[in-house]
Amino acid sequence: MRFAGEVHDGWDIGGNANGGYLLAIAARAMRDASGRPDPVSVTAHYLRPGKPGPVSVEVQPVKEGKTFASVRANLLGADGRPLLSLLGTFGTLSSTLDASEHHELVDAAPPEMPSFEECKPRQHAAELAPAFMDKVDLRLHPDDSVFSSGQKSGEARMRGWFAWPEGADGEREEVDTIGLLQATDAFPPTIFNVELPVGWVPTVELTTHVRARPAPGPLRCEFTTRFVTGGFLEEDGEVWDATGRLVAQSRQLALVPRG
Amino acid sequence: MRFAGEVHDGWDIGGNANGGYLLAIAARAMRDASGRPDPVSVTAHYLRPGKPGPVSVEVQPVKEGKTFASVRANLLGADGRPLLSLLGTFGTLSSTLDASEHHELVDAAPPEMPSFEECKPRQHAAELAPAFMDKVDLRLHPDDSVFSSGQKSGEARMRGWFAWPEGADGEREEVDTIGLLQATDAFPPTIFNVELPVGWVPTVELTTHVRARPAPGPLRCEFTTRFVTGGFLEEDGEVWDATGRLVAQSRQLALVPRG
Repeated sequence: MRFAGEVHDGWDIGGNANGGYLLAIAARAMRDASGRPDPVSVTAHYLRPGKPGPVSVEVQPVKEGKTFASVRANLLGADGRPLLSLLGTFGTLSSTLDASEHHELVDAAPPEMPSFEECKPRQHAAELAPAFMDKVDLRLHPDDSVFSSGQKSGEARMRGWFAWPEGADGEREEVDTIGLLQATDAFPPTIFNVELPVGWVPTVELTTHVRARPAPGPLRCEFTTRFVTGGFLEEDGEVWDATGRLVAQSRQLALVPRG
Repeated sequence: MRFAGEVHDGWDIGGNANGGYLLAIAARAMRDASGRPDPVSVTAHYLRPGKPGPVSVEVQPVKEGKTFASVRANLLGADGRPLLSLLGTFGTLSSTLDASEHHELVDAAPPEMPSFEECKPRQHAAELAPAFMDKVDLRLHPDDSVFSSGQKSGEARMRGWFAWPEGADGEREEVDTIGLLQATDAFPPTIFNVELPVGWVPTVELTTHVRARPAPGPLRCEFTTRFVTGGFLEEDGEVWDATGRLVAQSRQLALVPRG
């Protein structure tokens, strides 16, 4: 199955499309091909940078099961070369997670942050932020945004709120389970807050597990890095909804910036 | 490219082949097809249980780059249906990791455990352990192995040593970077140590990042679970070599046992 898509202008960081945006384009096509409403686990390997213009998503079914359907895909650029290669399992996630239906164990809590209203929106115009900051309403924890004024918090951590921006009518689109994938690759790199070179941190691989459909409202996100070794680093993400439920968990492998 | 393989007898848990063993079969074929010596990031989606008998691995190249080569693959059972679907990036990893060559940040330490010699080997014959316990030399931390006598440590954690067993000549084969993949799915589930049903914990997805080639000697491994929600759980793994270096990091998404 082949799906046509478009990398729109304005979703870039220095000319290269944001990785979470490319992931969402591919995952939407994969979801449609799977016939299931929600991504459960999606892995993307990042092969080449994406530029504005037409793209296509080639999806191959792998297994159609009772509970899950698995598909693999390549997101192809205008020249037909793969930008992302992906593997995903799709299913039906709960939106009214009832703990009584399942065994529960939660050994963590959403990050403590000033409220969405109190955190300053990270706008493209206001500072030297990537163009795609106009496309998302990203509000960083004040302690973690010090890198934008050349300081370091000292902790390889990035916390903040993620929402879609207000439309002309003052309304916001709610984030769905495809949007959750996008949220896991929308924040500045964790290592901007430690004594490492600030530069492009190329993603090699990103896996997101979506654990539930998010309740309406801005999402609390936290990204941390524990191991920078051998030129690689991992970035672990947690996304929590307005009701305090973990809705997505992510890990990416990335390359340490040269410098 | 198509590679022939064999699921040998004795690698099973109640008749189904161990997931890490299947992963290693597939990853070895992917590595050979990639022309690179080491797996850097490999994701496997588990679709059907593997039975002893012939299997094949169908590998498709995705990108051949300067630093990395990416391939995707399906591990097919005797009837041609996929057991695993995989996506991997391969390259050349360091075996003499020199911190001076790279920026380093390590915010964790290997698990503290009694020595390899002090930990009791987990043998198939000695207790009700899976058949494949004869194929690996797995030695659990005494605090975490209490589940085998019906107790619970109370922490969703499983620590232990991983090595290949001694051969007839008293020598052990050293674990290579394909063996590391296998190590990340060789331990009993973390949740056997908490108040959840003890049963089959089916893996949906397993991603392993190999960070370096391990030094000779048994590997220290630690697996933890922080979120059991909505019928899913993740299991995060860390594998450390004899010199105290992190050599692999893994995460799997699995289903909570019914019961």
